[in-house]
Amino acid sequence: MHESDTIVALATAAGPAAIATVRLSGSDSITIAARLFSPASLSEIPSHRAVFGQIHDPETGRLLDHALCTVMRGPGSYTGEDVVEISCHGSPAVTNEVLALCCRQGARIALPGEFTRRALEHGRMDLAQAEAVLDLIHARTPLAARAAAEKLSGGFSNEIECIAEHLLSLLAKVEAGLDFPEDVENAESETFCSALERQAAEPLARILSAYNDGEVLRSGVYVAIVGRPNAGKSSLLNALLDRDRVLVTEEAGTTRDVVEESLITSGGLFVLADTAGLSENAARLELLSMERSRQALEKARLVLFVVDGSRGSVEEEAQLLEAECTGKEVLVLANKADIAGEEKLACVEAAFSGRNVLRISALTGQNLSLLRRHMAAFFPTFSGSASCGPNMRQKLSLERAAAGIQAALDNARSQAWELAAEDLRISIAGLDETLGRNVSEDVLDRIFSLFCIGK
Amino acid sequence: MHESDTIVALATAAGPAAIATVRLSGSDSITIAARLFSPASLSEIPSHRAVFGQIHDPETGRLLDHALCTVMRGPGSYTGEDVVEISCHGSPAVTNEVLALCCRQGARIALPGEFTRRALEHGRMDLAQAEAVLDLIHARTPLAARAAAEKLSGGFSNEIECIAEHLLSLLAKVEAGLDFPEDVENAESETFCSALERQAAEPLARILSAYNDGEVLRSGVYVAIVGRPNAGKSSLLNALLDRDRVLVTEEAGTTRDVVEESLITSGGLFVLADTAGLSENAARLELLSMERSRQALEKARLVLFVVDGSRGSVEEEAQLLEAECTGKEVLVLANKADIAGEEKLACVEAAFSGRNVLRISALTGQNLSLLRRHMAAFFPTFSGSASCGPNMRQKLSLERAAAGIQAALDNARSQAWELAAEDLRISIAGLDETLGRNVSEDVLDRIFSLFCIGK
Repeated sequence: MHESDTIVALATAAGPAAIATVRLSGSDSITIAARLFSPASLSEIPSHRAVFGQIHDPETGRLLDHALCTVMRGPGSYTGEDVVEISCHGSPAVTNEVLALCCRQGARIALPGEFTRRALEHGRMDLAQAEAVLDLIHARTPLAARAAAEKLSGGFSNEIECIAEHLLSLLAKVEAGLDFPEDVENAESETFCSALERQAAEPLARILSAYNDGEVLRSGVYVAIVGRPNAGKSSLLNALLDRDRVLVTEEAGTTRDVVEESLITSGGLFVLADTAGLSENAARLELLSMERSRQALEKARLVLFVVDGSRGSVEEEAQLLEAECTGKEVLVLANKADIAGEEKLACVEAAFSGRNVLRISALTGQNLSLLRRHMAAFFPTFSGSASCGPNMRQKLSLERAAAGIQAALDNARSQAWELAAEDLRISIAGLDETLGRNVSEDVLDRIFSLFCIGK
Repeated sequence: MHESDTIVALATAAGPAAIATVRLSGSDSITIAARLFSPASLSEIPSHRAVFGQIHDPETGRLLDHALCTVMRGPGSYTGEDVVEISCHGSPAVTNEVLALCCRQGARIALPGEFTRRALEHGRMDLAQAEAVLDLIHARTPLAARAAAEKLSGGFSNEIECIAEHLLSLLAKVEAGLDFPEDVENAESETFCSALERQAAEPLARILSAYNDGEVLRSGVYVAIVGRPNAGKSSLLNALLDRDRVLVTEEAGTTRDVVEESLITSGGLFVLADTAGLSENAARLELLSMERSRQALEKARLVLFVVDGSRGSVEEEAQLLEAECTGKEVLVLANKADIAGEEKLACVEAAFSGRNVLRISALTGQNLSLLRRHMAAFFPTFSGSASCGPNMRQKLSLERAAAGIQAALDNARSQAWELAAEDLRISIAGLDETLGRNVSEDVLDRIFSLFCIGK
């Protein structure tokens, strides 16, 4: 990391627009911006004051654009360093030229996520908050944005911090006990364990249990549409998306690849996966397609099992469901209900007795709004910061911490205090890692490479 | 126009990014933004001060995002009204929700160009400056951005204003003379005409003569690549673009439609048009293709006439050039120079004697950098505000003004002072129209409909 050099990047999305913002951060950011900007002297105006002026090429004196400039002096800025935001007209020709002018004056183009990484390094946020910035930018739904904003506010970090402090104080007690072993008694072991349970193990378990809900918020509910060939899976995908996304023919086996499409509803984000039909007598190509269908099934939080309701005899389908969808939330859809007739539909319901069967028609739209309501039930109910949940990296660190706590409990019960102390240290390291303390540069590189340039 | 209501729009480009700016303008903009924003009270903070805080849904109290808010109070704002800029995280889910929250609090989504139109109506800029904003946003090259920025600075408007003032004072003299006809003499007619020439006719002609250069800056140099079938026109386009844009085969007549591609160079923007080959014996489809080729030729500022240099005998091509390219700037390119041999290339040069012939090879790249230098000469040399030039609408108004001045000169010479006064009024009206005074709502509607929402 080059902490002292000055970085610059376009902070807003690319493309013609009313406004685009070029952001500088670093010790020379004000000096560099001041060379381009007039008439106000940026080095003299107060922090967080927006001033209007012109951008000139300092070498030729030529006017480039009219712009609004805001200086935000460190440490009270996003990165903790001196930051300048130049809001110019949103033409790529203008912003590229402003970037070039800044670079000719000594700035360099920022690496992906480098602004946020500097914020982390200057203690403006911890790693969990930095990751929340990424979640916020890529939020697909207002709900996901809210959860990420909560995490950015520090609610999640505070909970972790609080657990870490309890562990530290328990560790101090154990270490004191180690120095004076005569003080450590059975009674004390029980007090210790009950405190460790209450102050660390339980809250940590609660945080970890929010992982799945958080994943759903971030990535959506993955819904696999499966069934035998020609049941109407692709028609259902098109009907739910309300557009002709996938090719539909009367020929069985039209769909070969898994087609994933996002569906944003008021409840949240679904990722709908149309799959190739599952059948017993499959040729080589079909077997490969079915392999992919099964991978989609594996990922699914909800399976829409589509049955051709007009066939009536669906025992094979019922067997298929039992064989393929074990342990999955399944909703059976008796499709083609518009032409199937009561008798055949009743047969389908009988074949899947004990299962939730919905009569639908992808063609006419019959019961699709009811289906949408059923699907909406798969969203977690959002209630404050709890639903943010850890991301995968945080979850792995927190699981290490949780394992340490369990081991400490076991060792404390058998009076193995030296081991328990070591377990607590491992546990504290896991919590620290969650918040980005003592995390290697390699790990940080990997995390920030996921950011866009400009953040 | 609803001057008092409050409008809101995304001012930055759409799409995930570090920052996105939502802009409000209107009498309620501060009140509306203040309901979403905390902890600072926006109604109390000074103008042009950026404050950091949180965006909440005022109905549910739920946190949506962390944001930087800047209040810019009228009349010292872009629109001349109270403006609030909310810089939040650049997720479409976030910005859409901020827009929705603003609308629920009483704002409405802005029409295209409505912010700039309000700036016009509040006297923050004239119409020529407002059009310069549009040119700036859509500038494809730094040069075009600079020219638009100059125009936005008011240089162009000042020149028009200055001519209008001279006309007004000359009109006042004529009107004074009309009241006292005995004062008007031949000598006075000469003084009047010489003043009108110097103060109005000449500067206006200079401004109008900049139209072409301005068009080149805005839209680029249109270059038609023409020639007989299979001369290598498409290969040349691909070579100049440095990518396989158009399909190239050994079969004559591969290209049917005109393919236009932008090429941005340090000098400026070229629009390269690959065309179908021109030939004498053409079938129906070829005739239609050739019709399009000729339309491209018509638009061209520069014609690259491509000849297969390896054919040697190119008399037909020479005739084709004379027949099709009259009045055009033409550069003859003896293509396939890598395989043609000296003798045949000399034949080509003889056939086009008196023309600029360049030996090139689209295949090997031979002499393409020389060709690029030849092309670059077709850019106007940019020198200050003169190169901005009027746009088409301004040109038409200015031409009416220029025609009025010519008529006034004629009438003044024949002592028809009443008619001359009327001509001057027409001329002044033309200048006023250029700057947007006395322009109908319909015309403004049409102009601002070209803007994007948010500007």
